[in-house]
Amino acid sequence: MGATRITAPAGVPFIDIEREFAAPRALVHRAYSDPELLKQWLGPRKYVMEIEVWEPRDGGRWRYIHRDADSAYGFHGVFHGPQTEERMLQTFEFEGAPGHVSLESVEFIDQGDRTLVRNHAVYQSIEARNAMVESGMEEGINDGFDRLDALMARLTTHEPAGAGAPR
Amino acid sequence: MGATRITAPAGVPFIDIEREFAAPRALVHRAYSDPELLKQWLGPRKYVMEIEVWEPRDGGRWRYIHRDADSAYGFHGVFHGPQTEERMLQTFEFEGAPGHVSLESVEFIDQGDRTLVRNHAVYQSIEARNAMVESGMEEGINDGFDRLDALMARLTTHEPAGAGAPR
Repeated sequence: MGATRITAPAGVPFIDIEREFAAPRALVHRAYSDPELLKQWLGPRKYVMEIEVWEPRDGGRWRYIHRDADSAYGFHGVFHGPQTEERMLQTFEFEGAPGHVSLESVEFIDQGDRTLVRNHAVYQSIEARNAMVESGMEEGINDGFDRLDALMARLTTHEPAGAGAPR
Repeated sequence: MGATRITAPAGVPFIDIEREFAAPRALVHRAYSDPELLKQWLGPRKYVMEIEVWEPRDGGRWRYIHRDADSAYGFHGVFHGPQTEERMLQTFEFEGAPGHVSLESVEFIDQGDRTLVRNHAVYQSIEARNAMVESGMEEGINDGFDRLDALMARLTTHEPAGAGAPR
């Protein structure tokens, strides 16, 4: 299983996350763009993931909710620019803190049978970036990427060649 | 006439702009939220400003075009979070470089008869911020703020008390 590298360099309002997956780029990209796949892996294991809208195209909107027995946490944003197998870009806003927005790009780097995912998030201030780091985001990212890893293993084992194409 | 302070600090992907206007906050805010006023001041003098859509509310869209005899330059984005007399927040994308997005907040700070406008823009990288600084943005900002200054002077002279309310 791959290792997740999370960096939050001092003095700049960035969080960078990298992880390599043992699956071709088209399939990894599908796990980010198809809500039926996305809801199987994104976020902490302790929540149920409900995707209300997920429109990965320029100007498209997204909204999802993480639920447990007691609470519901909503998140939403807007996709910006071309959304391709190489790169997605979206705004990200936790509904518990309206008006605190980050801008997040995901690059999918083709390495043949493997894909490197590079996430770059920029915050409105270094303080806002630090607050995100201190929020316990790491657990959610690791849970999510571990589940994505397992999902990729299932799909590359069970699907015929050309599995990256939309079904 | 007020002076515009533009700062682009080394090592962080920010551009900060401040200017004080001799008008009450409600009126300055109206000049940002009402497209009929906005088109009279925003951007370089050398272009004609055409506002296609301007929806300053959470999730609302905006798009405008700067035109001269030869060319047209489109810009668009989405408002994020509560849009109030204290603060607006939007994404900003030049259509000549799709997928290169910045996140821009404007704060309106009430100083009685005067208003301090504070613009904070954050870019996806320091390189993208530097490219914006080198693009000649300063001319557009100074032209715009000088025209906003003149517009505020006209409206505070000719309008009765309570001029900040929508007409």
